[in-house]
Amino acid sequence: MTTSIDSPDSTYESKVRRSFANQAFMHTLGATIARLAPGKCDIVMPSHPSLAQQHGYIHAGAVGAIADSAAGYAALTLAPPDSSVLTVEYKINLVAPAQGDSFVARARVIKSGKTLKIALSEVFSLRDGTETLCAVMTATIMILHGKPEPA
Amino acid sequence: MTTSIDSPDSTYESKVRRSFANQAFMHTLGATIARLAPGKCDIVMPSHPSLAQQHGYIHAGAVGAIADSAAGYAALTLAPPDSSVLTVEYKINLVAPAQGDSFVARARVIKSGKTLKIALSEVFSLRDGTETLCAVMTATIMILHGKPEPA
Amino acid sequence: MTTSIDSPDSTYESKVRRSFANQAFMHTLGATIARLAPGKCDIVMPSHPSLAQQHGYIHAGAVGAIADSAAGYAALTLAPPDSSVLTVEYKINLVAPAQGDSFVARARVIKSGKTLKIALSEVFSLRDGTETLCAVMTATIMILHGKPEPA
Amino acid sequence: MTTSIDSPDSTYESKVRRSFANQAFMHTLGATIARLAPGKCDIVMPSHPSLAQQHGYIHAGAVGAIADSAAGYAALTLAPPDSSVLTVEYKINLVAPAQGDSFVARARVIKSGKTLKIALSEVFSLRDGTETLCAVMTATIMILHGKPEPA
Repeated sequence: MTTSIDSPDSTYESKVRRSFANQAFMHTLGATIARLAPGKCDIVMPSHPSLAQQHGYIHAGAVGAIADSAAGYAALTLAPPDSSVLTVEYKINLVAPAQGDSFVARARVIKSGKTLKIALSEVFSLRDGTETLCAVMTATIMILHGKPEPA
Repeated sequence: MTTSIDSPDSTYESKVRRSFANQAFMHTLGATIARLAPGKCDIVMPSHPSLAQQHGYIHAGAVGAIADSAAGYAALTLAPPDSSVLTVEYKINLVAPAQGDSFVARARVIKSGKTLKIALSEVFSLRDGTETLCAVMTATIMILHGKPEPA
Repeated sequence: MTTSIDSPDSTYESKVRRSFANQAFMHTLGATIARLAPGKCDIVMPSHPSLAQQHGYIHAGAVGAIADSAAGYAALTLAPPDSSVLTVEYKINLVAPAQGDSFVARARVIKSGKTLKIALSEVFSLRDGTETLCAVMTATIMILHGKPEPA
Repeated sequence: MTTSIDSPDSTYESKVRRSFANQAFMHTLGATIARLAPGKCDIVMPSHPSLAQQHGYIHAGAVGAIADSAAGYAALTLAPPDSSVLTVEYKINLVAPAQGDSFVARARVIKSGKTLKIALSEVFSLRDGTETLCAVMTATIMILHGKPEPA
């Protein structure tokens, strides 16, 4: 479905990585960017006891956080240089318990409007070499034109 | 709209508090239970640099996490003793930047079915004595009958 | 929670009613505007066999349609004269079977931004004088500035 | 991503078609089933003036209705013979104006649990031989075991 698309910002990669480095919460979660391309962003988060809910699985809030950041940065790759992103809303279906060695959120922009970008973000758990879909998110990201991401 | 309702579990308060204490992620976020009543749960989270996104606001994932836990525990107050809760899905609209001294998620069950409970969870920022609505969540919580919350 | 608010358009009522009259689908559903105030809109739909799903209840799509229109028109009451509205997304929880003599969707704007307005829309069934909550929607409405609603 | 899956009900096709025939609202919309396979359902709706909103596009409620029915019937193909389906919630992002000669909702089950099935439903407009994505829905469908679809 997705064909190769271009970014309107040739420096999108450094822009996204700098912004991600500024997200202290991603550091708190131990999350890192695993892949970046125009309209796409993958974020990986290793399993850690500090992220658990009461049954020992990863908390839905932590799963939602990496899915949301991946969606926002997938959108930012398609935004002009002097703009930043803000999540307007997201909805997540938690389809399997979040258990595994690590988790990867894979987001891609499915509609790239000027003001709003819509992304689909899927979270997979990785365990013994097996990937399992554990969450599906759709998110609306607003592009703030004329307000660049903080340096 | 909400009238006084009863809990089917006279020990709901200790059950919820014990389960919350088992949610390591709530501890990571610095979150605590501020209020508990049948069908209702408030969770407070002080602002902290470790929770920030790139603009210095609190990350939508952290906001979503306390809103989700509040929704789940509001549901658990209405569940029988030998059951536990699991979030099936949630959707959050982020209506204002999450900036403030602290944040409170106030959840209430708006429909209490046997298998599924639906909750509305609102997050307010508190700043200089003023409350501002910053997020609204609706969540579906599944009751796992015959599977008590972990001790 | 909601205090009295003003509309930026003194002709909002005629604007909304004219736009509603242009929504052929509302006519197909038999829906009418029952109440209009700045930031609020109620839409009523009588029960009719043509709206049924397989169990004889009203189809979730028809319930969603009046909840969405109510949300959009609640937003339009708060938009400037030369603008129109477009639904960006909505999420609906169907909390009880939609059975009754008629249905009313009651929407109110919970956040009125310049570009985006967020509304909460609740649908109640009316039966023998009793109201039952059957659906809860949150919706994001975009204001298209400089593009007035069609005459 | 989707591999061939089996249905637990060898009569799933007649079951779904009979239930669809019982959805008067689908008849009101002029919608028909275009494709059926285990875990999948496509529903087509020709454009018609009776479905329009104020700008002349198809109303988001009508788009949501076919996306929801497609999701529900995709789920029903994976349900045992003596069960029926009920939509718990859905969320739809309207990513492009719904204009075209006809519309097709393509749903597939992305998680098939015993009690809950999660479906992704995409709506495309068809115009002069070109398909355009106009909406994306995620839906939670509940399986009512022991309660067969009405005959």
